[in-house]
Amino acid sequence: MTTVAILQREDWSLLDAQQREQLLRRPAQQTLATTSTAVRAILDDVRSDGDAAVRALGARFDGVALDDFAVAADEFCAAVTGLPEALRNAIDEAADRIAGFHQAGMTAPYGIDTAPGVYCERVLRPIRRVGLYVPAGSAPLPSTALMLGVPAQLAGCPDVVLCTPPRRDGSADPSVLYAAQRCGITRVFKIGGAQAIAAMAFGTQRVPRCDKLFGPGNAYVTEAKRQVALADDGAAIDMPAGPSEVLVIADTGANPAFVAADLLSQAEHGPDSQAILLSNDDTLIAAVSEHLAEQLAALPRAAIARQALQSSRAIRVATIAQALEISNRYAPEHLILAVRDARAWLPQVQAAGSVFLGDWAPEALGDYCSGTNHVLPTSGAARYSGGLNVASFQVAITVQEVQPQGIAAIGPCAVELATAEGLDAHRLAVALRLQAVAA
Amino acid sequence: MTTVAILQREDWSLLDAQQREQLLRRPAQQTLATTSTAVRAILDDVRSDGDAAVRALGARFDGVALDDFAVAADEFCAAVTGLPEALRNAIDEAADRIAGFHQAGMTAPYGIDTAPGVYCERVLRPIRRVGLYVPAGSAPLPSTALMLGVPAQLAGCPDVVLCTPPRRDGSADPSVLYAAQRCGITRVFKIGGAQAIAAMAFGTQRVPRCDKLFGPGNAYVTEAKRQVALADDGAAIDMPAGPSEVLVIADTGANPAFVAADLLSQAEHGPDSQAILLSNDDTLIAAVSEHLAEQLAALPRAAIARQALQSSRAIRVATIAQALEISNRYAPEHLILAVRDARAWLPQVQAAGSVFLGDWAPEALGDYCSGTNHVLPTSGAARYSGGLNVASFQVAITVQEVQPQGIAAIGPCAVELATAEGLDAHRLAVALRLQAVAA
Ligand SMILES: [Zn+2]
Ligand SMILES: [Zn+2]
Repeated sequence: MTTVAILQREDWSLLDAQQREQLLRRPAQQTLATTSTAVRAILDDVRSDGDAAVRALGARFDGVALDDFAVAADEFCAAVTGLPEALRNAIDEAADRIAGFHQAGMTAPYGIDTAPGVYCERVLRPIRRVGLYVPAGSAPLPSTALMLGVPAQLAGCPDVVLCTPPRRDGSADPSVLYAAQRCGITRVFKIGGAQAIAAMAFGTQRVPRCDKLFGPGNAYVTEAKRQVALADDGAAIDMPAGPSEVLVIADTGANPAFVAADLLSQAEHGPDSQAILLSNDDTLIAAVSEHLAEQLAALPRAAIARQALQSSRAIRVATIAQALEISNRYAPEHLILAVRDARAWLPQVQAAGSVFLGDWAPEALGDYCSGTNHVLPTSGAARYSGGLNVASFQVAITVQEVQPQGIAAIGPCAVELATAEGLDAHRLAVALRLQAVAA
Repeated sequence: MTTVAILQREDWSLLDAQQREQLLRRPAQQTLATTSTAVRAILDDVRSDGDAAVRALGARFDGVALDDFAVAADEFCAAVTGLPEALRNAIDEAADRIAGFHQAGMTAPYGIDTAPGVYCERVLRPIRRVGLYVPAGSAPLPSTALMLGVPAQLAGCPDVVLCTPPRRDGSADPSVLYAAQRCGITRVFKIGGAQAIAAMAFGTQRVPRCDKLFGPGNAYVTEAKRQVALADDGAAIDMPAGPSEVLVIADTGANPAFVAADLLSQAEHGPDSQAILLSNDDTLIAAVSEHLAEQLAALPRAAIARQALQSSRAIRVATIAQALEISNRYAPEHLILAVRDARAWLPQVQAAGSVFLGDWAPEALGDYCSGTNHVLPTSGAARYSGGLNVASFQVAITVQEVQPQGIAAIGPCAVELATAEGLDAHRLAVALRLQAVAA
């Protein structure tokens, strides 16, 4: 039966607590010791030999030895003019919508008098130098350039560096360049993999050292980001990246062809992607499985999707409310609520990266152009963190401005607490000022 | 000469680039291999033996073997009634001011139509279970209980767990209990050190497993937080913690006694604390050094402060503008601007945890009761992140609600981009819906 072969079916009510936990456990994501060692060697190389190491590693891993991996102005111009107009327009349209949504959600500075003469505020500063990584993999990813570049631009980061792997002919993908330029980014380097992360984290002769690195990537990039985040001389990173995942909750009224396409969208991202379907309707589950088989047959990336579907599941639940409980436990990166009156269920969503309400909101819209960001927490991190936004590119600084009247008002409270905590210099720093004010 | 002995003086203009970099480098904070190994053993113990391990470790490290480390209701009541009224009032006053400032800065949910029929929003959810660690060390720290508990309460976290080391007699510090209760926290466990972090990260029979851990601590606690943050079955953490630090910029008009007390406040936090003074006035630097010597002589924690001052510096700069540049490079946890018209310099501050403007704003106010949070980025992390706030206890979830009209409007853009990126199932998920809408 194709159903079983493509998407393993489970019945929640038939499982005991341990089996349920097992079912929601992500496939183990162990970084191979060999990957870790290889990445460490790459980081060390780039740290000590800079551009020469980057060049040698590019020749080895990307098959391209570039004298200068900085994208020159004329390559930028050619990209812009050479790109098909329809694609250019799509990138423009997506950029505008992403910018609109992200701008509306920007944190505002604020300040209040917390006591007479004590004005406290929070001001925002852009992170000075950020490094964006846009992978290429099997195809260019202009959408990722937008998802990183738009919020960086809105934050006002004065120095934005972007690395992306060169193509076989040594050029950068024009759609990525166009998207970068659309975000005001002019410093693009044709460097891929762990060596790109190393170059931006440690700096080389050509690549400036960045304060924080952003963007997805393969296992080497992910491991490189992890290692530079732990290194004393490294850089901060946006978030730990795991395989992409979707959880779809579908009721009787859901369209099985839509649901199947949404599950496949997830599955085609990579062989370690995970797609989970929860439904209270056996007929729907069966119909989705049939559509899956049919769509899979025509899919160019069927081999990848088929592998991903091996760790994917269809779970029969008793009620939609139970499905929401399970989803909150799993905390998916993407959650599609293909249920009637989807909005009514939103208050039950406690942990998810991005939520898609109703039959007309495929996850693909969030990947590209609804306006939300597609860099989202994976591997259950949605239990405690959200996706990328403008604040990810900013530093929030608190400020206190205190008048003599202010220290007179709140100083005694500080003296009392400093005394209780046995911090005498703290007490003194306040007491000296209180004396001066009183004098 | 006492000046040299207490605070090493450097002249920025006499240093070359390398010496300058060296001067601003934090003292190396290498976690001893023995610490790391010891912590790993503690985590393994707690993970496998739960409460029994916590009990045994408490006996070993805190000298107290507690049958039940949960603080019972009567211990809470005794704490409240037994606490001196002045201290109770000070805790209340600080809590109110912290709550006022943090509440004013809370992120609001928002939503906009990014296209006709496409409504995108960001909603906020409290993190379901958070674990707070309040160290004891040489003295109780009710202020830390407030700095963690107030934003957790404002975020609406439904389940807040607090661990703090027991005192020798097996009781919890009453001021910490009072502060916890003030923040609506009723689940307090008398567990200290790495075993407290392990218990909250992995869960035991009595201590529930938490999604995210917050709070400062000694080298063991810090290392334990680092290890559980990296573990697959661990918990997220607020931020990596380094030694506390202050950078004071003082001009000719600054009060040297105030400045000395502020430097000492930092120094008394711990032997690895760092205090840096930047001034364009030699006389001021000399006067601060004299006051330092004098105040140090009377300080109960003089031994600790003296050790910290060994890695502290007074740096003669040419101008206040240059001092700001140096400060931005160093990115201090605390920045005191003891200069005339301090507010005018604030726009130059690019990287700092919390800023204190003018002569009447000692860092001690921020530690206790100005209203800002005292859990702040250290070790230069202020270049890319800010201190604790209500959002640290929340998850931001993006949502897209799409009508048939909406997919008709933006679907073609997604199709174009999915095609360019070679993701055919993504294209299909949108195209199927476009067909259905058109039909
Ligand atoms: Zn996708
Ligand atoms: Zn302090």
